[in-house]
Amino acid sequence: MLEGLNKKIASLKPLFEPASIAIIGASADLRKPSGQPVAALVNNGFAGRIYPVNPKYKEINGLKCYPDPASIPGPVDLAIIAVPAALTLQALKDCAAKGVTGVIIFTSGFGEVGEEGKRQQDELARVAREAGMRLCGPNCMGIFSAHNRLMANFAVMELPGRVLIKDFFGFVSQSGGFGAAIYQTVKERGIGFSHFISTGNEADVEFSEYLAYMAGDSHTKVIGGYLEGVKNGRQLVEAADLALQVRKPVMLIKAGKFAPAARAAASHTGSMVGSEKVYSSFFRQKGITRVESLEELVMALSILAAGKLPGGNRVAVLATSGGRGVMLADKCSEFGLDVVNLAPETRARLDQLLPSFASTANPVDITSQIMTHPGLLQSCAEIVLSDPDVDAMVVAYWALHGDTTNLDQMINVSRNSSKPVVNLVWGLEEATLKAIHYLQDQLVPATQQAEYAVKALGNLSRYSMYLAKRAHEAPASPVPEDSLRRAAEIMAEAKQDGRLAEHRAKSVLREMGIPTTREELATTLEEALASAGKIGYPVALKIDSPDILHKTDAGGLFLNVKTPGELAEKYPQILANANNYNQGAKINGILVQEMLPPGTEVIVGIARDETFGPTVVFGLGGIFVEALDDIAVRVAPLTPTDAREMIEEVKGYRLLQGMRGAPAGDIDAIVEVILRVSQMAMNLPALAELDINPLMVYPRGIIAADAVIILKDNAGSQESSNQ
Amino acid sequence: MLEGLNKKIASLKPLFEPASIAIIGASADLRKPSGQPVAALVNNGFAGRIYPVNPKYKEINGLKCYPDPASIPGPVDLAIIAVPAALTLQALKDCAAKGVTGVIIFTSGFGEVGEEGKRQQDELARVAREAGMRLCGPNCMGIFSAHNRLMANFAVMELPGRVLIKDFFGFVSQSGGFGAAIYQTVKERGIGFSHFISTGNEADVEFSEYLAYMAGDSHTKVIGGYLEGVKNGRQLVEAADLALQVRKPVMLIKAGKFAPAARAAASHTGSMVGSEKVYSSFFRQKGITRVESLEELVMALSILAAGKLPGGNRVAVLATSGGRGVMLADKCSEFGLDVVNLAPETRARLDQLLPSFASTANPVDITSQIMTHPGLLQSCAEIVLSDPDVDAMVVAYWALHGDTTNLDQMINVSRNSSKPVVNLVWGLEEATLKAIHYLQDQLVPATQQAEYAVKALGNLSRYSMYLAKRAHEAPASPVPEDSLRRAAEIMAEAKQDGRLAEHRAKSVLREMGIPTTREELATTLEEALASAGKIGYPVALKIDSPDILHKTDAGGLFLNVKTPGELAEKYPQILANANNYNQGAKINGILVQEMLPPGTEVIVGIARDETFGPTVVFGLGGIFVEALDDIAVRVAPLTPTDAREMIEEVKGYRLLQGMRGAPAGDIDAIVEVILRVSQMAMNLPALAELDINPLMVYPRGIIAADAVIILKDNAGSQESSNQ
Repeated sequence: MLEGLNKKIASLKPLFEPASIAIIGASADLRKPSGQPVAALVNNGFAGRIYPVNPKYKEINGLKCYPDPASIPGPVDLAIIAVPAALTLQALKDCAAKGVTGVIIFTSGFGEVGEEGKRQQDELARVAREAGMRLCGPNCMGIFSAHNRLMANFAVMELPGRVLIKDFFGFVSQSGGFGAAIYQTVKERGIGFSHFISTGNEADVEFSEYLAYMAGDSHTKVIGGYLEGVKNGRQLVEAADLALQVRKPVMLIKAGKFAPAARAAASHTGSMVGSEKVYSSFFRQKGITRVESLEELVMALSILAAGKLPGGNRVAVLATSGGRGVMLADKCSEFGLDVVNLAPETRARLDQLLPSFASTANPVDITSQIMTHPGLLQSCAEIVLSDPDVDAMVVAYWALHGDTTNLDQMINVSRNSSKPVVNLVWGLEEATLKAIHYLQDQLVPATQQAEYAVKALGNLSRYSMYLAKRAHEAPASPVPEDSLRRAAEIMAEAKQDGRLAEHRAKSVLREMGIPTTREELATTLEEALASAGKIGYPVALKIDSPDILHKTDAGGLFLNVKTPGELAEKYPQILANANNYNQGAKINGILVQEMLPPGTEVIVGIARDETFGPTVVFGLGGIFVEALDDIAVRVAPLTPTDAREMIEEVKGYRLLQGMRGAPAGDIDAIVEVILRVSQMAMNLPALAELDINPLMVYPRGIIAADAVIILKDNAGSQESSNQ
Repeated sequence: MLEGLNKKIASLKPLFEPASIAIIGASADLRKPSGQPVAALVNNGFAGRIYPVNPKYKEINGLKCYPDPASIPGPVDLAIIAVPAALTLQALKDCAAKGVTGVIIFTSGFGEVGEEGKRQQDELARVAREAGMRLCGPNCMGIFSAHNRLMANFAVMELPGRVLIKDFFGFVSQSGGFGAAIYQTVKERGIGFSHFISTGNEADVEFSEYLAYMAGDSHTKVIGGYLEGVKNGRQLVEAADLALQVRKPVMLIKAGKFAPAARAAASHTGSMVGSEKVYSSFFRQKGITRVESLEELVMALSILAAGKLPGGNRVAVLATSGGRGVMLADKCSEFGLDVVNLAPETRARLDQLLPSFASTANPVDITSQIMTHPGLLQSCAEIVLSDPDVDAMVVAYWALHGDTTNLDQMINVSRNSSKPVVNLVWGLEEATLKAIHYLQDQLVPATQQAEYAVKALGNLSRYSMYLAKRAHEAPASPVPEDSLRRAAEIMAEAKQDGRLAEHRAKSVLREMGIPTTREELATTLEEALASAGKIGYPVALKIDSPDILHKTDAGGLFLNVKTPGELAEKYPQILANANNYNQGAKINGILVQEMLPPGTEVIVGIARDETFGPTVVFGLGGIFVEALDDIAVRVAPLTPTDAREMIEEVKGYRLLQGMRGAPAGDIDAIVEVILRVSQMAMNLPALAELDINPLMVYPRGIIAADAVIILKDNAGSQESSNQ
């Protein structure tokens, strides 16, 4: 996987590191999109060669202008195409003929305007692919890279003036205008971009590939993006894995959480918005922070730019008013931070400094005494930060006009500690803004808005804990090759049926090492009686047919059959019922099965997501799934931690933990089943869907009581797999 | 109730409308808390008489200073006491002797510092009460009222300079410092306060009474507060009802949503924080907006100050970038706004104005064409606002330096429509702030932060819909007096038991008109057989004892008894089991009861909240309540709408709506039960708790299958009422 990814990343190099650029359709009007790069590349001192191309001009902005790509004397790495839509294909072909390896197409009027545009866009992609060119766009604003002054876009026309931290943030946007606005806003805070990319219609290079490029790129420390939807979720998985491997935080703004926005996103760029449930689960699975506002993004970047990542989620709150501290404590709890009890020594040290009407419990109320006691704020903050149970601190104080005493103290505090400190400065507008700028200029995170600050801190602590939790994770134990091969053979035998009914599905599960009920398939009453004798009464009788998924509805299920006499009575009934229910149904036989003792019923399965492909689902049986949609999902493959987290995620988890004196279920055993199911999803290509329902969970061990497997070609047949 | 409330409100008049003020312990240092009111009352032109009182001075700030209250020549309505804690009681007694009717005690060192302080505070309250004085504080910052320039505090020292809307916002704060900071911040936006009150320790006048005063006061249009907890929830109910009656929105910041903040609030002011669940349910019940940040509060005030309240929650989003619009649509959905489909005519009119690459679906992407087409923004905004399906609009655009074209258009739009329009201006900091001020100065709601703006709009739409929904609500039909009297008699008969076991509890329910199972209490086997004969087999047999609440645990329950023979066998068993379980238990007899057909099991009950008193609870039986805490609560009494909303609130509601082909439950019948239970809570003073569990719900009708009533004196006995 990684090799393929590295190859993809390498193929993007001409888009980001060209030694020469041609601007096809360059305008002499340098304010037009087709003129802006010509101006910006020259003005900002791009070090490579710049070739405007336009038969109308001899020269643009002091550069010789060429009539066509062919007439450019030297090689061209990157071409920007900014000609009308009707001329774009020819321009692209000209680039191919010239040996160009990277192309950015500004031109719009393709996939975003309908079917005919989509067809033309596919043709662009085909030409690029055949010529070995990578293509950004069409309908995009292009690419900006800071380190080499690559102004191959019409959104960023000059290098930022004030940069407090260089080569830091790489941002990929599926919206040009929104992305450019985010660029402007973040840039103003002094946070340097490594790259800004407007991806446009993604005819060739997709969002995830740019993310992967950022992960592999030495200029980028933190990765961000505005995402409406990816076409190929597997590429996003790869990019996310690479970012995790190199420990670069990924923060994405993902549109379409709710239906109206999802509809709008789908219609306005034609992008696949995908399932919100799967996306949000995937973000959690891969430690990706979903950012919900620009302000929150900026605050997270400020904390990271200061070189801080909280070691965990234990936070201390310091405020100059009791009420403010209480409200901040609530915000911290809301966003997943733990407002910890301070150590007795910490409190004792604070008690020595603070008046009796202060509170040295967390949230610490340091009172307005900081106005009259210079140094008090810094001392208290340092004492609290030195508490080993504190991972981060939020400090709130009132902005004073023209007095930087508190600010200077907090700058010292920030410098002297490796723990993040967020300054919440509030007060009258002018004084507040001045104070915030004063702090920000020293790379000290500061804002007026508690909500955004605390949310950003909560997100970073979640990311940090995510990394810690997975740092020493043992990989899932692999299912032996032989077992996978045998499972594939069993599935191949059922190819014509399109599905594996219970008995066969369970034999696959057994190959995977998943315990199932003891059972035998009988095709005559005599066989059934013999089987029941072996298994021991009472038994369950079930119709086994790939054409009957809802056994209960079909009258194809008798539980608790106690005697041979009862069995002999039910056997013909079950066949008759099945025949009534579905006359042409293929009947494999009657399954004679042990009766299981009661336990907690859960569901483990495989579903195919249109974006991400194979996913593993988990939920509790009965009303949890049916009435509450209480189901967890992860993109395959899963790690043991993923499996455990998805179990803990469902509301019904409390039932598995043991309730009202009932014993706890064997969570480890469920984890193991989920991991094996994950491997089935990845390694059995014929498998489309799996439903183990129920998987019986006991204090020690689990048993698959019923299962069905849907094969790939028949995934869309009439009866749903939800039995 | 209203009469009592009006009397309370009238009693606060000396605190808010004094004709004369004494400042006991006035300081000649006008920067000290005890000097500030002397300065501020004079400087701001308070029209009444001002009497500094301090034996140390002859004169303060040009006013004659008196040695003690007694030597003041005229009457004194209001006294501010700012003497040391040890002298406070005497000062209060002096005020009483002088005939003062309102007192504000700044002095701290009472209830907030421990048991002795609490005792002294109780003494202050006693003296005030006996003298007929109302007391604000101690440990407070006092009261500010704008219309009469009442600077009876040490937080607000001057009248605000720029007031865009006068006599508007009344704010009551349980935190002095936090409240004063909120005052400063809101004031800076040009929003005028009617009153600002720092309530301190609330030895006498409580938070809710100030709220009620604001509701009754002609200077206040919108009521706000910072609340940690009230002592007497019933007073808060009264205040909320009065505010609803006069249609003044109430917006409260409530601390203690999560445990750490709740602990801190409880310890630092000694206030009762109460149950988060009950508070949040109460807010919903009374249309009170819970504000979670200052920014959100300010935005809501801006919208209200512009004289706008959305008619409903249907919102249109207009943005100059597709991505921004999509993100805003998600925010709207998140905060309860409905991003509606625009009418075809609206879209057709927009289509005529906008280019083909714009989107006229909601969110509307008007594109950056507004930069080049003056008037386009206003035209589009007006077209969208004129859509009858749109209640409010959110407009987002980029701030331009020194160009007010868009702003002027949006000011026009705001002026020409009765629907709220929120301007989200974003961009580089300076340009954005200028643009926002430009709009705010015209009372046009504007901000940079989408989150706060959309949340505020969502809250106001919820308030508006709350009012509409209850505007024509029929009151609950009252339970006849006779029935209540008989129910009280039945309860009185069980006084010694402390509880009403099932049979008696159900006879109370029947008096309330709540259907129950057909059943008879038997004390001999013969009676039991006769009862079963009447009721018809199969029957249920249950032990009926006030001392055995958990019948199943006690082996005191046999279901589905099919024959007289079986009954004769079980009857002695049930008695033996009960005797084994609890030897001294009082046995009323054996309940012979009809077996009910299966239905959806719900729970309706009465619980006592330490703050609010009687509350009504509702939930679905089984795991919903047990594993998911899926229970709704309302403070009694409930209206029919309250009852319906609490049913709709629980997650298990989907089961009642009918699932997987099962018929829907009779919601109307549950509403009726809840309303009768609410009347029991209000009109049966001996009743502490009630638990109807289960109430069986059928497609038509409901039946109480089991019930228990706990009487007041015994509410705290060993066995819980949760059976």
